[in-house]
Amino acid sequence: MTNNNSITSMWGGRFSEATDKFVAEFTASVNFDKRLAIHDIDGSIAHATMLANCGILTDTEKDKIVDGLTQIKHEIATGNFVWSVALEDVHMNIEAKLTQLIGDVGKKLHTGRSRNDQVATDIRLYLREQTDVIVDLLARLQQGLLDLAAKHTHTIMPGFTHLQTAQPVSFAHHVMAWFEMLIRDGERFIEARSRINQMPLGAAALAGTTYPIDRQLTAKLLGFEGICQNSLDAVSDRDFAIEFASNASILMMHLSRISEEIILWMSAQFGFVQVPDRFCTGSSIMPQKKNPDVPELVRGKAARVFGDLITLLTLMKNQPLAYNKDNQEDKEPLFDVVDTLTGSLIAFADMLPNLVPNKTNMQNAALKGYATATDLADYLVKKGLPFRDAHEVVGKTVALGIDKGVDISELSLSELQSFSDLIDDDVFEFLTLEGSLNARNHLGGTAPSQVKMAIERGRGRINKLQD
Amino acid sequence: MTNNNSITSMWGGRFSEATDKFVAEFTASVNFDKRLAIHDIDGSIAHATMLANCGILTDTEKDKIVDGLTQIKHEIATGNFVWSVALEDVHMNIEAKLTQLIGDVGKKLHTGRSRNDQVATDIRLYLREQTDVIVDLLARLQQGLLDLAAKHTHTIMPGFTHLQTAQPVSFAHHVMAWFEMLIRDGERFIEARSRINQMPLGAAALAGTTYPIDRQLTAKLLGFEGICQNSLDAVSDRDFAIEFASNASILMMHLSRISEEIILWMSAQFGFVQVPDRFCTGSSIMPQKKNPDVPELVRGKAARVFGDLITLLTLMKNQPLAYNKDNQEDKEPLFDVVDTLTGSLIAFADMLPNLVPNKTNMQNAALKGYATATDLADYLVKKGLPFRDAHEVVGKTVALGIDKGVDISELSLSELQSFSDLIDDDVFEFLTLEGSLNARNHLGGTAPSQVKMAIERGRGRINKLQD
Amino acid sequence: MTNNNSITSMWGGRFSEATDKFVAEFTASVNFDKRLAIHDIDGSIAHATMLANCGILTDTEKDKIVDGLTQIKHEIATGNFVWSVALEDVHMNIEAKLTQLIGDVGKKLHTGRSRNDQVATDIRLYLREQTDVIVDLLARLQQGLLDLAAKHTHTIMPGFTHLQTAQPVSFAHHVMAWFEMLIRDGERFIEARSRINQMPLGAAALAGTTYPIDRQLTAKLLGFEGICQNSLDAVSDRDFAIEFASNASILMMHLSRISEEIILWMSAQFGFVQVPDRFCTGSSIMPQKKNPDVPELVRGKAARVFGDLITLLTLMKNQPLAYNKDNQEDKEPLFDVVDTLTGSLIAFADMLPNLVPNKTNMQNAALKGYATATDLADYLVKKGLPFRDAHEVVGKTVALGIDKGVDISELSLSELQSFSDLIDDDVFEFLTLEGSLNARNHLGGTAPSQVKMAIERGRGRINKLQD
Amino acid sequence: MTNNNSITSMWGGRFSEATDKFVAEFTASVNFDKRLAIHDIDGSIAHATMLANCGILTDTEKDKIVDGLTQIKHEIATGNFVWSVALEDVHMNIEAKLTQLIGDVGKKLHTGRSRNDQVATDIRLYLREQTDVIVDLLARLQQGLLDLAAKHTHTIMPGFTHLQTAQPVSFAHHVMAWFEMLIRDGERFIEARSRINQMPLGAAALAGTTYPIDRQLTAKLLGFEGICQNSLDAVSDRDFAIEFASNASILMMHLSRISEEIILWMSAQFGFVQVPDRFCTGSSIMPQKKNPDVPELVRGKAARVFGDLITLLTLMKNQPLAYNKDNQEDKEPLFDVVDTLTGSLIAFADMLPNLVPNKTNMQNAALKGYATATDLADYLVKKGLPFRDAHEVVGKTVALGIDKGVDISELSLSELQSFSDLIDDDVFEFLTLEGSLNARNHLGGTAPSQVKMAIERGRGRINKLQD
Repeated sequence: MTNNNSITSMWGGRFSEATDKFVAEFTASVNFDKRLAIHDIDGSIAHATMLANCGILTDTEKDKIVDGLTQIKHEIATGNFVWSVALEDVHMNIEAKLTQLIGDVGKKLHTGRSRNDQVATDIRLYLREQTDVIVDLLARLQQGLLDLAAKHTHTIMPGFTHLQTAQPVSFAHHVMAWFEMLIRDGERFIEARSRINQMPLGAAALAGTTYPIDRQLTAKLLGFEGICQNSLDAVSDRDFAIEFASNASILMMHLSRISEEIILWMSAQFGFVQVPDRFCTGSSIMPQKKNPDVPELVRGKAARVFGDLITLLTLMKNQPLAYNKDNQEDKEPLFDVVDTLTGSLIAFADMLPNLVPNKTNMQNAALKGYATATDLADYLVKKGLPFRDAHEVVGKTVALGIDKGVDISELSLSELQSFSDLIDDDVFEFLTLEGSLNARNHLGGTAPSQVKMAIERGRGRINKLQD
Repeated sequence: MTNNNSITSMWGGRFSEATDKFVAEFTASVNFDKRLAIHDIDGSIAHATMLANCGILTDTEKDKIVDGLTQIKHEIATGNFVWSVALEDVHMNIEAKLTQLIGDVGKKLHTGRSRNDQVATDIRLYLREQTDVIVDLLARLQQGLLDLAAKHTHTIMPGFTHLQTAQPVSFAHHVMAWFEMLIRDGERFIEARSRINQMPLGAAALAGTTYPIDRQLTAKLLGFEGICQNSLDAVSDRDFAIEFASNASILMMHLSRISEEIILWMSAQFGFVQVPDRFCTGSSIMPQKKNPDVPELVRGKAARVFGDLITLLTLMKNQPLAYNKDNQEDKEPLFDVVDTLTGSLIAFADMLPNLVPNKTNMQNAALKGYATATDLADYLVKKGLPFRDAHEVVGKTVALGIDKGVDISELSLSELQSFSDLIDDDVFEFLTLEGSLNARNHLGGTAPSQVKMAIERGRGRINKLQD
Repeated sequence: MTNNNSITSMWGGRFSEATDKFVAEFTASVNFDKRLAIHDIDGSIAHATMLANCGILTDTEKDKIVDGLTQIKHEIATGNFVWSVALEDVHMNIEAKLTQLIGDVGKKLHTGRSRNDQVATDIRLYLREQTDVIVDLLARLQQGLLDLAAKHTHTIMPGFTHLQTAQPVSFAHHVMAWFEMLIRDGERFIEARSRINQMPLGAAALAGTTYPIDRQLTAKLLGFEGICQNSLDAVSDRDFAIEFASNASILMMHLSRISEEIILWMSAQFGFVQVPDRFCTGSSIMPQKKNPDVPELVRGKAARVFGDLITLLTLMKNQPLAYNKDNQEDKEPLFDVVDTLTGSLIAFADMLPNLVPNKTNMQNAALKGYATATDLADYLVKKGLPFRDAHEVVGKTVALGIDKGVDISELSLSELQSFSDLIDDDVFEFLTLEGSLNARNHLGGTAPSQVKMAIERGRGRINKLQD
Repeated sequence: MTNNNSITSMWGGRFSEATDKFVAEFTASVNFDKRLAIHDIDGSIAHATMLANCGILTDTEKDKIVDGLTQIKHEIATGNFVWSVALEDVHMNIEAKLTQLIGDVGKKLHTGRSRNDQVATDIRLYLREQTDVIVDLLARLQQGLLDLAAKHTHTIMPGFTHLQTAQPVSFAHHVMAWFEMLIRDGERFIEARSRINQMPLGAAALAGTTYPIDRQLTAKLLGFEGICQNSLDAVSDRDFAIEFASNASILMMHLSRISEEIILWMSAQFGFVQVPDRFCTGSSIMPQKKNPDVPELVRGKAARVFGDLITLLTLMKNQPLAYNKDNQEDKEPLFDVVDTLTGSLIAFADMLPNLVPNKTNMQNAALKGYATATDLADYLVKKGLPFRDAHEVVGKTVALGIDKGVDISELSLSELQSFSDLIDDDVFEFLTLEGSLNARNHLGGTAPSQVKMAIERGRGRINKLQD
């Protein structure tokens, strides 16, 4: 056969003209799906092993195939493999090379399978591996947050709602809110992993195969925890990719929220934290600038993952069963999600534990903005006033403070008493930041003792996810 | 106080002018969040009970509050409650009414909580309930599919890839592919339920509260399986809503794919199924029309849920902690997801089991299109030809069939042998539809015996999800 | 006919069973498409007039129809029309009522048209009207921004990049950046309007009609500036709705960016602006709070419009020609876009001109953060240093400033000269905020004289859009 | 200076540590923004020319810079330029190389500008160029459709609504519906071009520059038709990119709809068209397969462009003025839109004019499905029956046809008359496909004479867009 290197030879028997050159390039996927090469070979080795075990290949044939594939794997790993766009995709590139290496027996590898179940298997093996990488990175980041929090259970800053000063919280408590977000992310990735880890191989093109294959064996060889139960579904299901992209979107949304806060806090106006220089860049024109590039970029990258998610959902929305070529478009968005997520997690795992809070600025900010107004209201309630009435009293007190340009803790006792005679000189201890913090002493509250316990529990929760 | 009915009275102490009328309407949420009313009251009753248990309310106060709330609940359930936009949201409407009913003690209900943790609790109670409704509807639909499949394990139709005839499958096998999709949906909703079912109450505005509350007790009273561990996160987390919308998007994507197929199959060109008249509508101008309205509409509605998902993700993306008013926009998309999903599931659970396949049309279609060409290739492989060479032989055979306008099973033995002398007169049994079907006899294959086992396993899988 | 009130009577001739009750409700659109009623009637009156003009109706028939429709229009306008879900949609509700009012001649109205071209016409009439409303609201908002800017060409604030202090700008200059965004929005809505304002009527169901209609006349009567040139396209085109939603998304993105800034500026840390109390709300628990509800809500609402856009795009993506029921799902997202946009524009047109900048805080912020570092670099360049070298010199100067905790304008001449002997005592006039501002004196720069000219040009640009 | 090749040297004066290695790679953009290199150099040459013209550079300096840049341009065009990730982006790579080539004078190029206005200029130049490419490709595709249509004004096929046979149309009429979609696309790209073609250069970092620049001159040199009027807006505006992505999304949606139809029509069940082999591919396992890869892939690629649009919108949504690093994420989605669009248009411009309709199959399909039922209703109306009553009569006639398994044109006169005595033997001429087609003889109708005129007008409309 002369055109050994031409894709048309794979299916050209019924065709009367060769593929248009532009079309060949337009429809080829090897430029991106070669990323799956190692998984493709692993799948092929397991497939050949199973075929031999079932008597569909001889042991000699199997050994030749495995040797050839092992050699190709080595060439790919060392960057010596020559990819050909004319061979369309990763599967055909490897199979053509195999036949070139070991002769006609290479043509037997594709017995009892199809590119449809093959590619679905490759993606799942890839995504299973990447899930593990992501869960590990998450754990490193979570650990870093616990370490950071542990240092700052008494570092007081204003808590915000509506970006208005609300009530004092500790910096540790704030960091632990980030930790909670990321714990949920870990849970989701781990739960989704078991839906990724199901084997489509054996579905062949769409209906199964006429060879007496043993799917349990192949699944065992590849470490799959289950087998896709319906061949039509097996080759057309991409739920696992969408679910992965959705989990990634939520995680990136969290990193974007964290980024937003770091960017705010690094502004001259807030001045709450410093990010070490090595995570920042400057300006080509303004010599004084030190820009929070990493959080800004991650905030931007979140948008990108959302776009990938919508691409994947829309891609699948109207497809009749079983495989359609539309599905070739599943890979680039998915790879983009993986790369974006991985890069962002590394950057954050490096950067976040190195945040340096400026305690003075944080404390000063908390002292302004009437952060302890709620404490005054609670004080009045404990003296017998219904909450709604206490709220009204304190509202008026704050209005006086604004007028005079002072915090309510700076008003005199008689000024305070002019709004309610329930107020006594014990009031001032409730209006300190420390008093306010310590008073929120229940599960989930910002009191230092509670936050310390939360950090302790956190270490166990990471370990549990890692199991 | 004269303006008892005015929202400004809830927080007006510090304000120098009343809210602009347009702004009051623009920012009010009662028109949609009143859907949460029953959950809001249930949450308040549990909160008051806990407050009394902790000595923050007297038992008498608690009883008054519970009685008042119970009366309001009844008014709402019977449609007699008068909602006021001036009172902004569901919480203020109910609290104002409570104070009107039971006097100043009503003002004590809000002790130790905030609207921030209150609304987060309401949404979670609502979504937990709706998840259960959806899982039940899913089970009904899954059951209907099993019943439909059970009748058609021997009904043969062409399986498609690229919408080109590929290989014969049974209608049951195709229906079971749908079943597989929906089983995964069920799993996702159930796993997400445990992340919904965590209690934010006790986080108060953002930092916890100064009252000696018992969050474990409240959680137990409300059936929550866990407690949000960080107050800042508790009031600002909407992951569970996004995860719900993502799961709903995947489910709607499945219903859209099924719709696409039903619409195709109802066309004059396919003629594979009939949908009973009661699920169709006609045309105002073309008297002959019978339109597959329900699947078309559901296909359209999938787009809507995708939009809601992207709304929720985007909404949260840049918010600093803790609560911001942006979050008010979480409710309408979420309610829209619930309504769209519920309606679509009811429609499909009613319609799908009533699909009537046209067996003759299906069989005829499978007989055309060279559906058994792969079987011929497999035949040659079993006679010793490498798969790739067999593929080439069959490609040429098909080309002859196209030229002559006949199926390969209609070519003569000598015509077949002109392509390969491995072909013998036993070949024709492999080229029948039944032969092709029966030959795919492994886990996940389309052989009737396999599909019957899959249906049987399916019944157990539904039950397991329902537990 | 007994079931005059039943939709099945409109197309039931070929049906053997009535529509399922749930299906009837699930597929009905009258609950939302009744919003198109007035446009539907206007279209019908024009259609009847054309039919009479072409001899398809008699003048008497036409007069009866027009009278009946006019009466229905009045009933709708006054809220006295009774809508029936059983009649499916706005068109059938009106036609059934017409026949009830004027008898069998009412049944002639639908001659030569279909609901497919009718609804496409209604939506376009509606969207044309709403476009005009939006352009008017935009103009009001643009005008308000010019008025605000005109007061503040000398109010100096720090300009930011990366939310780090960059260079001084005037508040007017910043407001004029918002103005530029909104001018582009106006252009887009106006250009899109001419694609909305094309008439589908006459396309009938999909292929045109057999009656000798005069589409030019109908178009003239309805104020359309063009006619859809292909009947298949006319009934299935929803580009105009997507384009509208895209323009709305960009506009909402702008409002969201503006909101982000106002929220930042209202924080205690920035303290750059006050928003009058009437545009803010308070907290149910924290008596001191004054929250920027309107910008926060608008920021949230932007996400909603993005979701609607993705819904509309996805909805249309896979539809074969011509009309499919999926398209019924075009209306609710479109109406949601219109409502969200209109409400947000009203709120901003009221609020933005009433922003009160805190000049002292702005000025103080600009004095910190080394805002004039670039001016020092430019000074050095003008003395002969290449820009890149000047940048290096100033970088070191800033580093000294940071060490000493002072601005570079507060360093002594000898300290400055230690970095470059090109520095002379004329340097200090370049380091003032006013000097920095005035120096950027070219088209688009922040110099007060330039901004004043920009405001003047702005007035003309609004007028031009309004033409 | 030793580290001439290090990015830190561009802004490192104030930094105490070098950028983290991972961060440097994570934040670098040169791997993708080098695509802008030629535009970047064109912009720099114009900038230098203007600087010399304004006396900011000497002519000798300008000449050196222009010579150096020209040499770099040549190196890039010939693939000999060595890109460095350490130099962060395309701008710094070129500037560093320039200084290496021509010495210190190279450092003067950046006078009076910033990377912020520089990159905004580059993207606009790039997108202006790509818009022209796209409009040209569109014109080629539009032309091909007109040519295809011109051959088939008498080729009859069933028109569909709800994918149910509706009324006969010509294949030409259907193709002209596609043409209409693409004409609107052309309009949108052309209108958006003028918003792209505005010059940000001169805005510098955000506030303008202190040098006496002449922006009109630079704009003229670069062919911009206008100048961004506000410096803050100039560096932060990405509306034009979103608008481009939105126009691309609508265009891809159109190509996806066309794809859906071609895929349907190529199925064995429809058999309406053939796509030449050179635009199709086969199967690795099923030898008979000929798959419509190109339309399937384009249908999938539409989803990708939607994702890019949502990425760009979301990216910009919450950014305060002026430039933030998030914006670096604008380029990859934008480039992806351009590549996807360009590739898809080339593929379609090649493929669509080569569609080969199967006239017999189309005609046979139109003869089934009661495509002329509306014609019978219209016939009755012309004989005096109100439309709604005629609809009812025909509905019953169709029901009889379905019962008997024949078309209504195959019913006997007496059978027809049993439903209405208005029916005479002239009825049969109205029930032919040709009669039905010819009868829709008005602007936009499917009558051959109308479609021919539409094709003729089409040629003029392409030319007008091309002007």
